[in-house]
Amino acid sequence: MDLYQFNQILLEKCALDLERPLVVGVSGGPDSLCLLDLLDKAGLPVIVAHYDHNLRPESGVEAKSVEREAVRRGLKFVLEQGNVREAAQTEGLSIEEAARQARYRFLFSQARASGAGAVAVAHHADDQVETVLMHLLRGSGLSGLKGMTYRAILPVWDSEIPLIRPLLSMWRTEILSYCKNNRLDPVMDHTNLDTRYFRNRLRHELIPSLESYNPQIREGILRMSRALAEDYELLREVIRQNWDRCLLREGEGYLVLDFELLRGYSGGLRKNMIREAIGRLRPALRDIDYEAVVRAESFILSPPAARRIELVGNLWLGLEGNSLFVAENLDRILEPDWPLMEAGHEIVLPVPGSIELQQGWSLVTALGSIEDVSREKLLESSPNEAWLDVDRLEDPLVLRTRRPGDRFQPLGMGGHSLKLADFWINERLPRRAREKWPLVCSGGRIAWVCGSRLAEPFRVTGTTRRVLHLKLLPSV
Amino acid sequence: MDLYQFNQILLEKCALDLERPLVVGVSGGPDSLCLLDLLDKAGLPVIVAHYDHNLRPESGVEAKSVEREAVRRGLKFVLEQGNVREAAQTEGLSIEEAARQARYRFLFSQARASGAGAVAVAHHADDQVETVLMHLLRGSGLSGLKGMTYRAILPVWDSEIPLIRPLLSMWRTEILSYCKNNRLDPVMDHTNLDTRYFRNRLRHELIPSLESYNPQIREGILRMSRALAEDYELLREVIRQNWDRCLLREGEGYLVLDFELLRGYSGGLRKNMIREAIGRLRPALRDIDYEAVVRAESFILSPPAARRIELVGNLWLGLEGNSLFVAENLDRILEPDWPLMEAGHEIVLPVPGSIELQQGWSLVTALGSIEDVSREKLLESSPNEAWLDVDRLEDPLVLRTRRPGDRFQPLGMGGHSLKLADFWINERLPRRAREKWPLVCSGGRIAWVCGSRLAEPFRVTGTTRRVLHLKLLPSV
Repeated sequence: MDLYQFNQILLEKCALDLERPLVVGVSGGPDSLCLLDLLDKAGLPVIVAHYDHNLRPESGVEAKSVEREAVRRGLKFVLEQGNVREAAQTEGLSIEEAARQARYRFLFSQARASGAGAVAVAHHADDQVETVLMHLLRGSGLSGLKGMTYRAILPVWDSEIPLIRPLLSMWRTEILSYCKNNRLDPVMDHTNLDTRYFRNRLRHELIPSLESYNPQIREGILRMSRALAEDYELLREVIRQNWDRCLLREGEGYLVLDFELLRGYSGGLRKNMIREAIGRLRPALRDIDYEAVVRAESFILSPPAARRIELVGNLWLGLEGNSLFVAENLDRILEPDWPLMEAGHEIVLPVPGSIELQQGWSLVTALGSIEDVSREKLLESSPNEAWLDVDRLEDPLVLRTRRPGDRFQPLGMGGHSLKLADFWINERLPRRAREKWPLVCSGGRIAWVCGSRLAEPFRVTGTTRRVLHLKLLPSV
Repeated sequence: MDLYQFNQILLEKCALDLERPLVVGVSGGPDSLCLLDLLDKAGLPVIVAHYDHNLRPESGVEAKSVEREAVRRGLKFVLEQGNVREAAQTEGLSIEEAARQARYRFLFSQARASGAGAVAVAHHADDQVETVLMHLLRGSGLSGLKGMTYRAILPVWDSEIPLIRPLLSMWRTEILSYCKNNRLDPVMDHTNLDTRYFRNRLRHELIPSLESYNPQIREGILRMSRALAEDYELLREVIRQNWDRCLLREGEGYLVLDFELLRGYSGGLRKNMIREAIGRLRPALRDIDYEAVVRAESFILSPPAARRIELVGNLWLGLEGNSLFVAENLDRILEPDWPLMEAGHEIVLPVPGSIELQQGWSLVTALGSIEDVSREKLLESSPNEAWLDVDRLEDPLVLRTRRPGDRFQPLGMGGHSLKLADFWINERLPRRAREKWPLVCSGGRIAWVCGSRLAEPFRVTGTTRRVLHLKLLPSV
């Protein structure tokens, strides 16, 4: 890395404000000494910042050596020490994580105090490869696989001062040669092996093993991370733009999206909007469950009569008019328009015909020949309609609410019979809806849990000739 | 996997046309027998297709056993055999690749012949994980890391009939249990170990090793691939839409983009448009060089006087008016408007002042104090201007074209001196431009190769007081 290239990176990749001071984290190791030397030679107003973690007996000597280096260069030096081991115990963190937090807290507080334009750290290309692999091992998405960036705003440390990583494309071996050629005298930290066990196993075992498959694997992963970073950048732009259009309002623990707009979106955009919504309400969730996204999409394309599903643990999706709620406590904010009937009532279903339910819903029945119904129709995933084999039904068809001891054989479970109560627990139907939920029954058995699931014994098969079509229609 | 879930996948993920026949590739192994059984039980009009690769003595027996299976189910059976070993030699392919090609050619020709709606193959979740890891080992981008899809149009085989993979979320162990529970009797192919060496090493060595870091690594990678597939879907939509706006015209080996439109795009979109352009002209390029994209972006933001750069091997970027050419043979389609002068001429540069060059270009000079120039300006990456340390220059400043033996010390190469001819070869300046290219010289030495690079000895340093600003201005 020559100074010309380094300057280009500072300006173009790090977007560094060259007129303001720059706080540089210097441990005294080869990476940070190389960074310090390059920044100093570029003539930048550098503040050398060293955090003494007090983890090893020689740490005080190392702090002194970093201070001497700063003084030799005529640069400002700031030092802080802390009891990281104690902090780790108090806060229930690993030593490594507690050390990282204390260090960054110190660096950013120094940056604020000195009006600095950025905090610079010495992450390099090998660190990047290891970071990408750690994300891979976690099964992380694009935001993790893209790795670290030359410039990042980390709101947890400061909402304006960026963290910059000018060495991100320099390999460890290049840094070591740089140190040698420029007569820098780095401290070698041998405790790496103790405190960063996982990362070191990656470095000393996994990467060499991957190199036996592809000797250029590190360059390959670095290249990959750069291409993914570009994709991520574009994706974030698109999501940000559309999010602003989609979001109707938001509050504590919930947000409301434009249902019709989402419905009209392409699959890719719709799924990303759903992930964005879950991510905003569950910021601690590292990876959003793919199945949750798929369930949300089916819900939007064909909203079930229950008008709500659970997306991920205690986070619900609910619909009211054009308002799609993503909420922790749906009951508190949304009065559902369920297709209920009077508890304990029993009505004979007219076939063909129609029956009115509560909240403007109606249940419509129709008879037909199997030839009139396409296979797609039969398998259609809308929970609000069902096709039954007429020859398996017993007259009359009855609409009623639950009774103690009701059991049910849901379609697709191989004829296995469940307590209706258990079925509803699986389906997450809110308790207060259950007493009034309409059930289509035939010969004493439940044939269709309205708006939810057909029973196995009444399904259409290869021998079916006539079909009964049941459909729940919402109010218009 | 129950039939209900399987039907949902066929309809929603594979978007299968249920009324048309379906060609299923059946090797006789557990994966394809499981797929066949599920498709058959779903009542689909299946055609069982077996390709006998003739790679093992028992292959004929296996073909017979697949045929028996089809007959037992009352399904149509088609068979083809080929000499894969010979094909591999003739076409210079690996046995595995030749086998794959012969098999898919057969499956799709059968699909066309029978008016089938799709070709189904039995790739499962473990195959998916291995595929993702193989892409990772190559350092592939999003298109590779997202893995295989439930449904794909592969233009190389057919532009309309999709390949579908209904088992993509089923693990190998689930398939084996399914075979056992449904009394299927699969053939076990032990040559896997010979013909698919790389993939088998992945399966038996790399994945178990990754599991020692994360026992859930396979599930993690599967989840990751699904999230990436959603991102990829959205990204492709955005790129497609904007590509149509950006593309002015295209021809054999070149395409023309809307320069001002690209300039106005965000970085993420611009970089992806550049990658799309390179990808369309170089479809065989598996991974597009990140540095090429960065070079193209600098070109667009600040076009150099040469009006062209080489992007990747023999693929050029060139500018003419608002037309941004990406082309294999730029010279044939683009007459460049270079800032040339008469070969052999020599002119004293007026300071401050201006000199007219060919094609409407002019070279403007100005003097200033170092205090008037910000550090950003000095480091600015536009190749069309330069700042020189006035006190290092010798009067008069001369503008001339090249002379035999000209040497040059490009900025950023530590004062290393190059033949001007070699510098131009590195910079890929077309040969016919070189005889007439203007050079700013001081005391017999080249100080600035106009529109390209400053010489190290004349650069601005910490001790500079007065600066000379040189700027090439295009015609207006």
